[in-house]
Amino acid sequence: MNMSLEECIKACLECMEACNGCYDACLKEEDVKMLAECIRSLRECADICAFSAKSMQSDSPYVKQICQACAEICQACGDVCKKHEHHEHCKQCAESCYKCAEVCRKMAV
Amino acid sequence: MNMSLEECIKACLECMEACNGCYDACLKEEDVKMLAECIRSLRECADICAFSAKSMQSDSPYVKQICQACAEICQACGDVCKKHEHHEHCKQCAESCYKCAEVCRKMAV
Amino acid sequence: MNMSLEECIKACLECMEACNGCYDACLKEEDVKMLAECIRSLRECADICAFSAKSMQSDSPYVKQICQACAEICQACGDVCKKHEHHEHCKQCAESCYKCAEVCRKMAV
Amino acid sequence: MNMSLEECIKACLECMEACNGCYDACLKEEDVKMLAECIRSLRECADICAFSAKSMQSDSPYVKQICQACAEICQACGDVCKKHEHHEHCKQCAESCYKCAEVCRKMAV
Repeated sequence: MNMSLEECIKACLECMEACNGCYDACLKEEDVKMLAECIRSLRECADICAFSAKSMQSDSPYVKQICQACAEICQACGDVCKKHEHHEHCKQCAESCYKCAEVCRKMAV
Repeated sequence: MNMSLEECIKACLECMEACNGCYDACLKEEDVKMLAECIRSLRECADICAFSAKSMQSDSPYVKQICQACAEICQACGDVCKKHEHHEHCKQCAESCYKCAEVCRKMAV
Repeated sequence: MNMSLEECIKACLECMEACNGCYDACLKEEDVKMLAECIRSLRECADICAFSAKSMQSDSPYVKQICQACAEICQACGDVCKKHEHHEHCKQCAESCYKCAEVCRKMAV
Repeated sequence: MNMSLEECIKACLECMEACNGCYDACLKEEDVKMLAECIRSLRECADICAFSAKSMQSDSPYVKQICQACAEICQACGDVCKKHEHHEHCKQCAESCYKCAEVCRKMAV
Protein backbone atom coordinates (compact mmCIF):
# COMPACT_ATOMS: atom_id res chain seq x y z
CA MET A 1 0.00 0.00 0.00
CA ASN A 2 1.48 3.37 -0.96
CA MET A 3 2.01 6.13 1.58
CA SER A 4 -0.71 8.53 0.44
CA LEU A 5 -3.32 5.76 0.48
CA GLU A 6 -2.33 4.73 4.00
CA GLU A 7 -2.40 8.35 5.10
CA CYS A 8 -5.85 8.86 3.62
CA ILE A 9 -7.29 5.74 5.25
CA LYS A 10 -5.84 6.92 8.56
CA ALA A 11 -7.36 10.40 8.17
CA CYS A 12 -10.76 8.90 7.32
CA LEU A 13 -10.71 6.56 10.32
CA GLU A 14 -9.68 9.40 12.61
CA CYS A 15 -12.38 11.66 11.24
CA MET A 16 -14.93 8.84 11.60
CA GLU A 17 -13.95 8.48 15.26
CA ALA A 18 -14.01 12.24 15.86
CA CYS A 19 -17.43 12.62 14.21
CA ASN A 20 -18.98 9.70 16.06
CA GLY A 21 -17.57 10.94 19.35
CA CYS A 22 -18.78 14.48 18.69
CA TYR A 23 -22.22 13.11 17.65
CA ASP A 24 -22.46 11.34 20.99
CA ALA A 25 -21.26 14.40 22.91
CA CYS A 26 -23.70 16.72 21.10
CA LEU A 27 -26.61 14.44 22.02
CA LYS A 28 -25.54 14.73 25.67
CA GLU A 29 -25.36 18.56 25.67
CA GLU A 30 -28.06 20.73 27.19
CA ASP A 31 -28.44 22.83 24.06
CA VAL A 32 -29.08 19.86 21.79
CA LYS A 33 -31.74 21.85 19.89
CA MET A 34 -29.02 24.30 18.85
CA LEU A 35 -26.87 21.36 17.76
CA ALA A 36 -29.43 19.61 15.56
CA GLU A 37 -27.73 20.73 12.34
CA CYS A 38 -24.40 19.56 13.74
CA ILE A 39 -25.76 16.16 14.78
CA ARG A 40 -27.23 15.66 11.33
CA SER A 41 -23.94 16.58 9.67
CA LEU A 42 -21.82 14.41 11.96
CA ARG A 43 -23.74 11.21 11.27
CA GLU A 44 -23.31 11.65 7.55
CA CYS A 45 -19.67 12.63 7.79
CA ALA A 46 -18.80 9.69 10.05
CA ASP A 47 -20.54 7.32 7.65
CA ILE A 48 -18.91 8.61 4.46
CA CYS A 49 -15.51 8.44 6.18
CA ALA A 50 -16.13 4.79 7.04
CA PHE A 51 -17.23 4.21 3.45
CA SER A 52 -14.08 5.87 2.08
CA ALA A 53 -11.81 3.85 4.36
CA LYS A 54 -13.52 0.65 3.24
CA SER A 55 -13.18 1.60 -0.41
CA MET A 56 -9.48 2.32 -0.14
CA GLN A 57 -8.80 -0.78 1.95
CA SER A 58 -10.46 -2.99 -0.65
CA ASP A 59 -8.95 -1.22 -3.69
CA SER A 60 -12.38 -0.21 -4.96
CA PRO A 61 -12.57 1.00 -8.56
CA TYR A 62 -14.45 4.03 -7.25
CA VAL A 63 -11.99 5.46 -4.74
CA LYS A 64 -11.85 8.82 -6.53
CA GLN A 65 -15.60 9.34 -6.66
CA ILE A 66 -16.00 8.40 -3.02
CA CYS A 67 -13.04 10.47 -1.81
CA GLN A 68 -14.43 13.43 -3.77
CA ALA A 69 -17.76 13.16 -1.94
CA CYS A 70 -15.92 12.57 1.34
CA ALA A 71 -13.74 15.65 0.86
CA GLU A 72 -16.77 17.87 0.22
CA ILE A 73 -18.76 16.47 3.13
CA CYS A 74 -15.80 16.69 5.54
CA GLN A 75 -15.17 20.31 4.52
CA ALA A 76 -18.82 21.21 5.04
CA CYS A 77 -19.03 19.28 8.32
CA GLY A 78 -15.90 21.07 9.55
CA ASP A 79 -17.65 24.38 8.85
CA VAL A 80 -20.72 23.27 10.79
CA CYS A 81 -18.63 22.09 13.76
CA LYS A 82 -16.62 25.30 13.73
CA LYS A 83 -19.81 27.29 14.38
CA HIS A 84 -20.14 25.40 17.67
CA GLU A 85 -16.48 25.56 18.71
CA HIS A 86 -17.38 26.76 22.21
CA HIS A 87 -17.93 23.02 22.67
CA GLU A 88 -14.42 21.57 22.82
CA HIS A 89 -15.59 18.36 21.04
CA CYS A 90 -16.92 20.39 18.12
CA LYS A 91 -13.71 22.39 17.89
CA GLN A 92 -11.55 19.28 17.82
CA CYS A 93 -13.89 17.54 15.41
CA ALA A 94 -13.68 20.47 12.98
CA GLU A 95 -9.92 19.98 12.87
CA SER A 96 -10.27 16.28 12.06
CA CYS A 97 -12.82 17.12 9.36
CA TYR A 98 -10.62 19.73 7.71
CA LYS A 99 -7.60 17.44 7.80
CA CYS A 100 -9.56 14.59 6.27
CA ALA A 101 -11.03 16.90 3.62
CA GLU A 102 -7.55 17.99 2.60
CA VAL A 103 -6.19 14.46 2.28
CA CYS A 104 -9.30 13.17 0.47
CA ARG A 105 -9.12 16.03 -2.03
CA LYS A 106 -5.66 14.84 -3.07
CA MET A 107 -6.89 11.27 -3.37
CA ALA A 108 -9.80 12.37 -5.58
CA VAL A 109 -7.64 14.00 -8.26
CA MET B 1 -36.12 -15.92 -3.67
CA ASN B 2 -38.52 -17.53 -1.22
CA MET B 3 -41.50 -15.70 0.24
CA SER B 4 -40.24 -15.27 3.79
CA LEU B 5 -36.95 -13.84 2.59
CA GLU B 6 -38.71 -11.35 0.35
CA GLU B 7 -41.04 -10.42 3.18
CA CYS B 8 -38.14 -9.89 5.57
CA ILE B 9 -36.20 -7.70 3.11
CA LYS B 10 -39.37 -5.65 2.60
CA ALA B 11 -39.90 -5.24 6.36
CA CYS B 12 -36.28 -4.17 6.83
CA LEU B 13 -36.44 -1.60 4.03
CA GLU B 14 -39.71 -0.22 5.38
CA CYS B 15 -38.30 -0.01 8.89
CA MET B 16 -35.15 1.65 7.54
CA GLU B 17 -37.32 4.27 5.82
CA ALA B 18 -39.51 4.77 8.90
CA CYS B 19 -36.50 5.15 11.19
CA ASN B 20 -34.67 7.57 8.93
CA GLY B 21 -37.84 9.63 8.49
CA CYS B 22 -38.49 9.64 12.23
CA TYR B 23 -34.84 10.56 12.88
CA ASP B 24 -35.23 13.57 10.58
CA ALA B 25 -38.56 14.52 12.16
CA CYS B 26 -37.18 14.23 15.72
CA LEU B 27 -34.31 16.56 14.86
CA LYS B 28 -36.87 19.11 13.67
CA GLU B 29 -39.01 18.97 16.84
CA GLU B 30 -38.87 21.65 19.51
CA ASP B 31 -38.26 19.15 22.30
CA VAL B 32 -35.23 17.58 20.64
CA LYS B 33 -33.48 17.32 24.04
CA MET B 34 -36.28 14.98 25.17
CA LEU B 35 -35.81 12.98 21.99
CA ALA B 36 -32.04 12.47 22.23
CA GLU B 37 -32.41 8.83 23.25
CA CYS B 38 -34.84 8.29 20.40
CA ILE B 39 -32.55 9.94 17.81
CA ARG B 40 -29.68 7.75 18.96
CA SER B 41 -31.80 4.61 18.70
CA LEU B 42 -33.24 5.49 15.30
CA ARG B 43 -29.86 5.95 13.61
CA GLU B 44 -28.73 2.56 14.78
CA CYS B 45 -31.98 0.84 13.89
CA ALA B 46 -32.09 2.35 10.40
CA ASP B 47 -28.52 1.25 9.80
CA ILE B 48 -28.94 -2.34 11.01
CA CYS B 49 -32.09 -2.65 8.88
CA ALA B 50 -30.12 -1.54 5.80
CA PHE B 51 -27.41 -4.03 6.77
CA SER B 52 -29.94 -6.86 7.12
CA ALA B 53 -31.54 -6.08 3.77
CA LYS B 54 -28.14 -6.09 2.11
CA SER B 55 -27.24 -9.40 3.73
CA MET B 56 -30.41 -11.10 2.61
CA GLN B 57 -30.22 -9.64 -0.89
CA SER B 58 -26.69 -10.96 -1.34
CA ASP B 59 -27.32 -14.36 0.28
CA SER B 60 -24.83 -13.66 3.02
CA PRO B 61 -23.68 -16.67 5.09
CA TYR B 62 -24.51 -14.61 8.18
CA VAL B 63 -28.17 -13.77 7.63
CA LYS B 64 -29.21 -15.41 10.91
CA GLN B 65 -26.70 -13.57 13.07
CA ILE B 66 -27.57 -10.24 11.48
CA CYS B 67 -31.34 -10.78 11.61
CA GLN B 68 -30.98 -11.76 15.26
CA ALA B 69 -29.26 -8.46 16.06
CA CYS B 70 -31.75 -6.62 13.86
CA ALA B 71 -34.73 -8.21 15.64
CA GLU B 72 -33.40 -7.20 19.06
CA ILE B 73 -32.55 -3.66 18.00
CA CYS B 74 -35.89 -3.15 16.23
CA GLN B 75 -37.77 -4.40 19.29
CA ALA B 76 -35.83 -2.06 21.58
CA CYS B 77 -36.15 0.86 19.16
CA GLY B 78 -39.90 0.26 18.95
CA ASP B 79 -40.06 0.52 22.74
CA VAL B 80 -38.13 3.80 22.68
CA CYS B 81 -40.36 5.26 19.95
CA LYS B 82 -43.47 4.14 21.80
CA LYS B 83 -42.48 6.33 24.75
CA HIS B 84 -42.75 9.34 22.43
CA GLU B 85 -45.95 8.33 20.65
CA HIS B 86 -47.48 11.76 21.17
CA HIS B 87 -45.36 12.49 18.09
CA GLU B 88 -47.21 10.82 15.22
CA HIS B 89 -43.91 9.94 13.47
CA CYS B 90 -42.67 8.11 16.57
CA LYS B 91 -45.95 6.22 16.89
CA GLN B 92 -45.85 5.08 13.28
CA CYS B 93 -42.17 4.26 13.49
CA ALA B 94 -42.75 2.04 16.52
CA GLU B 95 -45.17 -0.01 14.44
CA SER B 96 -42.61 -0.48 11.65
CA CYS B 97 -40.00 -1.45 14.23
CA TYR B 98 -42.21 -4.05 15.91
CA LYS B 99 -43.24 -5.52 12.57
CA CYS B 100 -39.64 -5.76 11.42
CA ALA B 101 -38.58 -7.27 14.75
CA GLU B 102 -41.21 -9.99 14.39
CA VAL B 103 -40.21 -10.92 10.84
CA CYS B 104 -36.48 -10.82 11.62
CA ARG B 105 -36.96 -13.08 14.64
CA LYS B 106 -38.38 -15.76 12.35
CA MET B 107 -35.50 -15.35 9.93
CA ALA B 108 -32.98 -15.71 12.76
CA VAL B 109 -34.18 -19.14 13.89
CA MET C 1 -41.73 14.17 0.48
CA ASN C 2 -41.67 15.50 -3.08
CA MET C 3 -42.04 13.23 -6.09
CA SER C 4 -38.50 13.39 -7.39
CA LEU C 5 -37.07 12.54 -3.97
CA GLU C 6 -39.38 9.56 -3.64
CA GLU C 7 -38.48 8.45 -7.14
CA CYS C 8 -34.77 8.73 -6.42
CA ILE C 9 -35.01 6.76 -3.17
CA LYS C 10 -36.94 4.07 -5.05
CA ALA C 11 -34.34 3.91 -7.83
CA CYS C 12 -31.52 3.63 -5.28
CA LEU C 13 -33.25 0.84 -3.37
CA GLU C 14 -33.97 -1.03 -6.60
CA CYS C 15 -30.39 -0.63 -7.77
CA MET C 16 -29.15 -1.76 -4.34
CA GLU C 17 -31.27 -4.90 -4.65
CA ALA C 18 -30.19 -5.54 -8.25
CA CYS C 19 -26.50 -5.10 -7.40
CA ASN C 20 -26.62 -7.31 -4.32
CA GLY C 21 -28.51 -9.97 -6.25
CA CYS C 22 -26.06 -9.78 -9.15
CA TYR C 23 -23.12 -9.89 -6.70
CA ASP C 24 -24.51 -13.11 -5.26
CA ALA C 25 -25.19 -14.57 -8.72
CA CYS C 26 -21.69 -13.67 -9.97
CA LEU C 27 -20.10 -15.46 -7.02
CA LYS C 28 -22.09 -18.57 -7.95
CA GLU C 29 -21.03 -18.55 -11.64
CA GLU C 30 -18.38 -20.90 -12.98
CA ASP C 31 -16.37 -18.07 -14.55
CA VAL C 32 -16.08 -16.12 -11.34
CA LYS C 33 -12.47 -15.20 -12.21
CA MET C 34 -13.80 -13.36 -15.28
CA LEU C 35 -16.32 -11.61 -13.06
CA ALA C 36 -13.91 -10.33 -10.41
CA GLU C 37 -14.08 -6.74 -11.68
CA CYS C 38 -17.87 -6.97 -11.75
CA ILE C 39 -18.08 -8.37 -8.20
CA ARG C 40 -15.86 -5.57 -6.95
CA SER C 41 -17.99 -2.95 -8.68
CA LEU C 42 -21.30 -4.40 -7.51
CA ARG C 43 -20.39 -4.34 -3.82
CA GLU C 44 -19.48 -0.68 -4.03
CA CYS C 45 -22.51 0.26 -6.10
CA ALA C 46 -24.93 -1.56 -3.80
CA ASP C 47 -23.40 0.16 -0.80
CA ILE C 48 -23.45 3.70 -2.22
CA CYS C 49 -27.08 3.17 -3.28
CA ALA C 50 -27.98 2.21 0.29
CA PHE C 51 -26.07 5.25 1.50
CA SER C 52 -27.92 7.54 -0.91
CA ALA C 53 -31.29 6.15 0.09
CA LYS C 54 -30.47 6.69 3.76
CA SER C 55 -29.33 10.24 3.10
CA MET C 56 -32.49 11.17 1.25
CA GLN C 57 -34.74 9.45 3.78
CA SER C 58 -33.17 11.39 6.63
CA ASP C 59 -32.99 14.75 4.77
CA SER C 60 -29.21 14.82 4.99
CA PRO C 61 -27.55 18.16 4.25
CA TYR C 62 -25.28 16.27 1.84
CA VAL C 63 -27.80 14.67 -0.52
CA LYS C 64 -26.28 16.37 -3.56
CA GLN C 65 -22.72 15.28 -2.89
CA ILE C 66 -23.80 11.72 -2.22
CA CYS C 67 -26.15 11.50 -5.20
CA GLN C 68 -23.34 12.87 -7.38
CA ALA C 69 -21.02 10.08 -6.28
CA CYS C 70 -23.87 7.58 -6.58
CA ALA C 71 -24.67 8.71 -10.15
CA GLU C 72 -21.05 8.30 -11.24
CA ILE C 73 -20.63 4.91 -9.57
CA CYS C 74 -23.94 3.59 -10.93
CA GLN C 75 -23.02 4.73 -14.45
CA ALA C 76 -19.62 3.03 -14.23
CA CYS C 77 -21.09 -0.11 -12.65
CA GLY C 78 -23.69 -0.27 -15.43
CA ASP C 79 -20.83 -0.22 -17.95
CA VAL C 80 -19.04 -3.03 -16.12
CA CYS C 81 -22.21 -5.16 -15.93
CA LYS C 82 -22.95 -4.51 -19.60
CA LYS C 83 -19.66 -6.19 -20.54
CA HIS C 84 -21.00 -9.37 -18.96
CA GLU C 85 -24.54 -9.19 -20.34
CA HIS C 86 -24.42 -12.80 -21.50
CA HIS C 87 -25.30 -13.37 -17.86
CA GLU C 88 -28.96 -12.37 -17.58
CA HIS C 89 -28.41 -11.02 -14.04
CA CYS C 90 -25.65 -8.70 -15.27
CA LYS C 91 -27.81 -7.48 -18.13
CA GLN C 92 -30.72 -6.68 -15.84
CA CYS C 93 -28.44 -5.13 -13.24
CA ALA C 94 -26.93 -2.80 -15.86
CA GLU C 95 -30.42 -1.48 -16.56
CA SER C 96 -31.05 -0.77 -12.86
CA CYS C 97 -27.66 0.94 -12.61
CA TYR C 98 -28.27 3.18 -15.61
CA LYS C 99 -31.73 4.10 -14.39
CA CYS C 100 -30.43 4.95 -10.93
CA ALA C 101 -27.55 6.95 -12.42
CA GLU C 102 -29.98 9.03 -14.43
CA VAL C 103 -32.25 9.81 -11.49
CA CYS C 104 -29.33 10.54 -9.13
CA ARG C 105 -27.78 12.92 -11.65
CA LYS C 106 -30.92 15.03 -11.51
CA MET C 107 -30.90 14.98 -7.71
CA ALA C 108 -27.26 16.09 -7.65
CA VAL C 109 -27.83 19.31 -9.61
CA MET D 1 -13.47 6.10 27.08
CA ASN D 2 -12.63 3.02 29.14
CA MET D 3 -9.84 0.66 28.19
CA SER D 4 -11.91 -2.30 27.04
CA LEU D 5 -14.02 -0.12 24.79
CA GLU D 6 -10.96 1.40 23.17
CA GLU D 7 -9.44 -2.04 22.75
CA CYS D 8 -12.61 -3.37 21.13
CA ILE D 9 -12.86 -0.44 18.70
CA LYS D 10 -9.21 -1.00 17.77
CA ALA D 11 -9.76 -4.73 17.20
CA CYS D 12 -12.81 -4.01 15.02
CA LEU D 13 -10.96 -1.45 12.90
CA GLU D 14 -8.01 -3.80 12.49
CA CYS D 15 -10.29 -6.67 11.52
CA MET D 16 -12.14 -4.39 9.09
CA GLU D 17 -8.83 -3.50 7.45
CA ALA D 18 -7.65 -7.12 7.37
CA CYS D 19 -10.94 -8.33 5.85
CA ASN D 20 -11.08 -5.61 3.22
CA GLY D 21 -7.45 -6.24 2.30
CA CYS D 22 -8.01 -9.99 2.13
CA TYR D 23 -11.18 -9.42 0.06
CA ASP D 24 -9.15 -7.43 -2.44
CA ALA D 25 -6.35 -10.01 -2.47
CA CYS D 26 -8.77 -12.92 -2.95
CA LEU D 27 -10.33 -11.20 -5.97
CA LYS D 28 -6.83 -10.94 -7.48
CA GLU D 29 -5.96 -14.62 -6.96
CA GLU D 30 -6.04 -17.13 -9.80
CA ASP D 31 -8.26 -19.55 -7.87
CA VAL D 32 -10.96 -16.99 -7.18
CA LYS D 33 -13.65 -19.63 -7.79
CA MET D 34 -12.28 -21.58 -4.82
CA LEU D 35 -12.36 -18.39 -2.78
CA ALA D 36 -15.97 -17.39 -3.50
CA GLU D 37 -17.14 -18.44 -0.03
CA CYS D 38 -14.25 -16.53 1.51
CA ILE D 39 -14.96 -13.36 -0.52
CA ARG D 40 -18.60 -13.48 0.55
CA SER D 41 -17.66 -13.90 4.19
CA LEU D 42 -15.03 -11.14 4.13
CA ARG D 43 -17.38 -8.47 2.81
CA GLU D 44 -19.84 -9.17 5.57
CA CYS D 45 -17.22 -9.37 8.28
CA ALA D 46 -15.54 -6.11 7.22
CA ASP D 47 -18.91 -4.37 7.21
CA ILE D 48 -20.08 -5.61 10.63
CA CYS D 49 -16.69 -4.61 12.10
CA ALA D 50 -17.14 -1.08 10.72
CA PHE D 51 -20.67 -1.09 12.15
CA SER D 52 -19.44 -2.22 15.58
CA ALA D 53 -16.72 0.42 15.66
CA LYS D 54 -19.24 3.11 14.77
CA SER D 55 -21.62 1.90 17.46
CA MET D 56 -18.99 1.95 20.16
CA GLN D 57 -17.59 5.32 19.06
CA SER D 58 -21.05 6.90 19.25
CA ASP D 59 -22.08 5.20 22.52
CA SER D 60 -24.94 3.40 20.82
CA PRO D 61 -27.56 1.85 23.11
CA TYR D 62 -27.13 -1.37 21.12
CA VAL D 63 -23.42 -2.04 21.51
CA LYS D 64 -24.05 -5.44 23.09
CA GLN D 65 -26.36 -6.70 20.36
CA ILE D 66 -24.01 -5.53 17.63
CA CYS D 67 -20.85 -6.85 19.29
CA GLN D 68 -22.64 -10.19 19.77
CA ALA D 69 -23.33 -10.43 16.03
CA CYS D 70 -19.83 -9.17 15.27
CA ALA D 71 -18.24 -11.80 17.53
CA GLU D 72 -20.16 -14.62 15.83
CA ILE D 73 -19.44 -13.38 12.32
CA CYS D 74 -15.73 -12.79 13.04
CA GLN D 75 -15.41 -16.28 14.52
CA ALA D 76 -17.09 -17.84 11.48
CA CYS D 77 -15.11 -15.70 9.05
CA GLY D 78 -11.89 -16.71 10.81
CA ASP D 79 -12.84 -20.35 10.24
CA VAL D 80 -13.49 -19.69 6.54
CA CYS D 81 -10.16 -17.85 6.12
CA LYS D 82 -8.32 -20.60 7.97
CA LYS D 83 -9.40 -23.10 5.30
CA HIS D 84 -7.47 -21.01 2.78
CA GLU D 85 -4.40 -20.35 4.90
CA HIS D 86 -2.06 -21.38 2.08
CA HIS D 87 -2.77 -17.78 1.03
CA GLU D 88 -0.77 -15.65 3.45
CA HIS D 89 -3.47 -12.92 3.41
CA CYS D 90 -6.13 -15.44 4.48
CA LYS D 91 -3.91 -16.78 7.24
CA GLN D 92 -3.26 -13.32 8.64
CA CYS D 93 -6.89 -12.31 8.25
CA ALA D 94 -8.02 -15.35 10.24
CA GLU D 95 -5.87 -14.15 13.13
CA SER D 96 -7.44 -10.67 13.05
CA CYS D 97 -10.90 -12.25 12.91
CA TYR D 98 -10.29 -14.53 15.89
CA LYS D 99 -8.81 -11.69 17.91
CA CYS D 100 -11.74 -9.44 17.14
CA ALA D 101 -14.22 -12.23 17.93
CA GLU D 102 -12.63 -12.70 21.34
CA VAL D 103 -12.73 -9.01 22.26
CA CYS D 104 -16.28 -8.53 20.93
CA ARG D 105 -17.51 -11.53 22.92
CA LYS D 106 -16.40 -9.81 26.12
CA MET D 107 -18.10 -6.57 25.06
CA ALA D 108 -21.35 -8.42 24.35
CA VAL D 109 -21.74 -9.85 27.87
